[in-house]
Amino acid sequence: MSAYLNMDTLRFQLFNTHKLENLLELPRFADYDMESIQIMLDAIKDFSDKELYPVFREMDENPVHYDDGKIVTHPLLGKILRQAAELGLVGGTFDYDDGGLQLPSTIGTATYFIMDAANNNVAGYTGLTMGAAELILHFASDELKQAYVPHMISGDWGGTMCLTEPQAGSSLSDITTTAYPQADGTYKIKGQKIFISGGDHEHVENTVHLLLARIEGAPAGTKGISLFVVPKHRPTENGLVPNDVFTAGDFQKMGQKGYCTTHLTFGETDNCTGFLVGEANRGLNYMFLMMNGARIGVGRGAVAIASAAYHASLQYAKERPQGRRLQNDGSKDLNQEQSLIIEHADVRRMLFLQKAIYEGGLSLVLQSSYYLDMANHGPEEEREKYKLLLDILTPITKTFPSEKGREAVDNGLQVLGGYGFCSDFVLQQYYRDIRIFAIYEGTTGIQSLDLLGRKITMRGGEALQLLSAEMMATIQAAMDHNDLKPYAAKLGDRIKQTQEVLAGLMPFAMRGEHERFLADATIFMEFFSTLVIAWQWLKMGVSAKQLALTGAGNYTEDFIESVLHTMRFYFTYEVPKMSGLVDIMSNTEELTLLKEKVWLS
Amino acid sequence: MSAYLNMDTLRFQLFNTHKLENLLELPRFADYDMESIQIMLDAIKDFSDKELYPVFREMDENPVHYDDGKIVTHPLLGKILRQAAELGLVGGTFDYDDGGLQLPSTIGTATYFIMDAANNNVAGYTGLTMGAAELILHFASDELKQAYVPHMISGDWGGTMCLTEPQAGSSLSDITTTAYPQADGTYKIKGQKIFISGGDHEHVENTVHLLLARIEGAPAGTKGISLFVVPKHRPTENGLVPNDVFTAGDFQKMGQKGYCTTHLTFGETDNCTGFLVGEANRGLNYMFLMMNGARIGVGRGAVAIASAAYHASLQYAKERPQGRRLQNDGSKDLNQEQSLIIEHADVRRMLFLQKAIYEGGLSLVLQSSYYLDMANHGPEEEREKYKLLLDILTPITKTFPSEKGREAVDNGLQVLGGYGFCSDFVLQQYYRDIRIFAIYEGTTGIQSLDLLGRKITMRGGEALQLLSAEMMATIQAAMDHNDLKPYAAKLGDRIKQTQEVLAGLMPFAMRGEHERFLADATIFMEFFSTLVIAWQWLKMGVSAKQLALTGAGNYTEDFIESVLHTMRFYFTYEVPKMSGLVDIMSNTEELTLLKEKVWLS
Repeated sequence: MSAYLNMDTLRFQLFNTHKLENLLELPRFADYDMESIQIMLDAIKDFSDKELYPVFREMDENPVHYDDGKIVTHPLLGKILRQAAELGLVGGTFDYDDGGLQLPSTIGTATYFIMDAANNNVAGYTGLTMGAAELILHFASDELKQAYVPHMISGDWGGTMCLTEPQAGSSLSDITTTAYPQADGTYKIKGQKIFISGGDHEHVENTVHLLLARIEGAPAGTKGISLFVVPKHRPTENGLVPNDVFTAGDFQKMGQKGYCTTHLTFGETDNCTGFLVGEANRGLNYMFLMMNGARIGVGRGAVAIASAAYHASLQYAKERPQGRRLQNDGSKDLNQEQSLIIEHADVRRMLFLQKAIYEGGLSLVLQSSYYLDMANHGPEEEREKYKLLLDILTPITKTFPSEKGREAVDNGLQVLGGYGFCSDFVLQQYYRDIRIFAIYEGTTGIQSLDLLGRKITMRGGEALQLLSAEMMATIQAAMDHNDLKPYAAKLGDRIKQTQEVLAGLMPFAMRGEHERFLADATIFMEFFSTLVIAWQWLKMGVSAKQLALTGAGNYTEDFIESVLHTMRFYFTYEVPKMSGLVDIMSNTEELTLLKEKVWLS
Repeated sequence: MSAYLNMDTLRFQLFNTHKLENLLELPRFADYDMESIQIMLDAIKDFSDKELYPVFREMDENPVHYDDGKIVTHPLLGKILRQAAELGLVGGTFDYDDGGLQLPSTIGTATYFIMDAANNNVAGYTGLTMGAAELILHFASDELKQAYVPHMISGDWGGTMCLTEPQAGSSLSDITTTAYPQADGTYKIKGQKIFISGGDHEHVENTVHLLLARIEGAPAGTKGISLFVVPKHRPTENGLVPNDVFTAGDFQKMGQKGYCTTHLTFGETDNCTGFLVGEANRGLNYMFLMMNGARIGVGRGAVAIASAAYHASLQYAKERPQGRRLQNDGSKDLNQEQSLIIEHADVRRMLFLQKAIYEGGLSLVLQSSYYLDMANHGPEEEREKYKLLLDILTPITKTFPSEKGREAVDNGLQVLGGYGFCSDFVLQQYYRDIRIFAIYEGTTGIQSLDLLGRKITMRGGEALQLLSAEMMATIQAAMDHNDLKPYAAKLGDRIKQTQEVLAGLMPFAMRGEHERFLADATIFMEFFSTLVIAWQWLKMGVSAKQLALTGAGNYTEDFIESVLHTMRFYFTYEVPKMSGLVDIMSNTEELTLLKEKVWLS
């Protein structure tokens, strides 16, 4: 079997870099220790090896499709989803009282990373079911909780998020699906939703849609949007009855072909009942409370694909002979056997680039999950701090793996040469699959506006100050190790450079020139992400050095040196790119602002 | 019909930037003038509109495939290939004496650009037939010429290049296909070839393979490789007879699904006859004389896809409403109609990036074609100079469009959001199609070794000096225009920076540390390509200003301003990235060199 991840890397990041033990000391997680967590991760790995990875290619070769009102998926999907649910992949992080396992979200992220690396077609189904159940648990009535959540945790029912409509992609203020109040307190729902992931399939008994709609007469824009539970089948005393929710079609896609994307109609025959979640007109607030977790999930999915692509291309590079090493006179000795391609410098550069991106991205995904756990369950007085750290890191956690992960996978494909483009090898599937992640849950452009336009500036820059303090703490720890000092200094310099960039940009915001302020937000995202990942790499470097000093523990010395070598690679081959981005952001030409004409032809 | 290119852009670059009139003054091209060239380009555009673009999606949706020993392609392919041949797309650049039209290669490139932008599945069939016929014309006996070339120019027979073997991808020194001399001067061929583009299909009467093989007992390595004509069917007095060439299978691919990639066997029943081309053991030399043209062709194909993706995403951006512009207080007015997405700064940034890459790449492709024409048909005393300019630009002309074109198409897909990932829209097809170009005809890694390891250093750096002189001439011309001066200065600064980079790298080559010298060749390629494209943009800027001074001629003022605006964009958003690349190349850590261990896990 082809490797799709390195469990040592995951363990090293969880236990050594991110010090999971600190989380496990919190009262909520009192039942867990390192050993029980290890057993759980191994169980998910075993499940992924046996059930997920073997059907990954099949799911691509036989895409999910729409047939006569139904969505047809892989025949084993039902079995897989129920097994996943049994392993805690829906309710794992929920309260014991709600039928959950009270696992840290950090562990939830780790388990989903394993699952996604093995087969990125499956995590969406369980993840959205988890998200939908979570919204019900947080904001809905006890009646709704009892009627829906247990079936979702068991994997018998699926769940979705219904936001997008044909006329309103990223612009939720323009949705028109309408909820008409009924005498019994329920609502009649009427409207259409598109791009609904996991929207319908035959392997669950029911699908529970968490749907955004306007109650008739609600105010315009996002302040008039409410959240509803709208099941495909209504649970009644007589069992499940159809609720006038139909699948009008599906979207055939370039990748993730085992994961359905549907077009749903609600109330075509005026017989679709929805149940209000929480208060009217607060729907978007509720949805956004889940958004940090959902966006971390997107980053995690992209990182998982980059991990799988890296391991597939590494395996190829170690086995494929091709060409010969250069001798000192620049010639090659034809009497030598061919070299393995991993012996060519440029191939190693492509492999290190992949490793630096995916492991850096994984570390960030775990970092944000850690902050999420601390924000929700840490000591009361520290929760606000962690919430701010989570808020500022979320758009980066979603975007860096989606954008740079694509570059990583692209390099993985290139390692295979012509074979990388052929369907006989898996790299082309990863290349297609990962492309959606820069679009899911708010495009890169939107994440970048969120980062620069909201998160950097919010509360007078408080989140940024907290993040800088975290980085400074890592720099401080690195200064204990002589061979980390140069990298600590580089990170320090880049933090100063970031302050200079912001000092150049903020006056535009203060003068009310918001379009100008945000015109290069996507460039700023690329710049700031590089800084954040450099911090993560230094943090990994510190934990590797600490391990090396105390004996390698459960890791080999080669493993530890590999972490340090990849840290050096990131600082040497990626961090310098920040300089060029600074120059771009300091331009005064306003070339992308809308002036009298568009100048595009 | 969706636009896939802008004919004004092509005309502007041909006639104004690259001064086609200078080429047409050469004796070889005496029969052509600007008007006849325009008529020819319009005829190809008309053919592309009517025959190529309408079947582009179909060819993807119903891929070429292997069925019982045969390759099944689109039913209209035969008609298309014959029409293309009639339009001169096989023999256009050949001598009148050989049945050609004696067109400049620059016009050959322009016509293929149009064809490829409309449908990149077709140009490979005609282009390889042209390349195979050209090899026969240059190096084979009159008997072979007469027997084969007329059928190829007419489009009745196809042609291929058979280089790659299973055990020897990029490493031609390791091919093992063998040619056994026969008493009558012919050879029996025995071996297998893979990845043979256009290798077999039912729409031509015969396929003529130009095949590399070793004559039994030939020296090892590239010095023992000979070139043979090996037809699928041997022409005899009694017509065509089978020649023991069989199709063992095809390669299913992520993109270019309308273009077959085959696995061929030669001489399985010892009955395959090959005809030696030119002298024994000179096969690779002959093949490499065609290589500049072939590599320009790869760059041209990639640029054409980037053009098509740009125009598709531009059209979408002009028609799709979504969200609203920011007001000065940072809020949005919900009572406004939704904006078109082209009004958002980040969308315009993505569109300008695409335009800057594809038009910059197209200009480079035409520049290299111009040098090719001058090297072959220019004044005798200048041919050597143009040959050197062609040699140094070829690896960049192949690589920039393939690498940055992919980034351009990626941005085009992103403009469409979720729709970009869906099969209902064409962007995902361009995203898949363009991925092979960084692999065709020598990967980016190999082109980069060629650029830094051979072309920069050859003849004591003479090619680089000539190229610098060309750039300086453009800078000089730009200094006549006040608003071009800042960009001319930037280009001058970057030329100096390039000299500094090389001054840092060359000592490694001189000391015989070749692996170290070339370790970051791919980074150097990215750096140097950016410089070359900046030069092309300044050149376009100069020609736009000249037009503006003399009245816009056949172009609108908006068109000219659009060229200048995109030039500014390239200098502002792309050229600054060179700074970071300099920092990378100046690193002293040798992280990708093979030391005692690989450090990859």
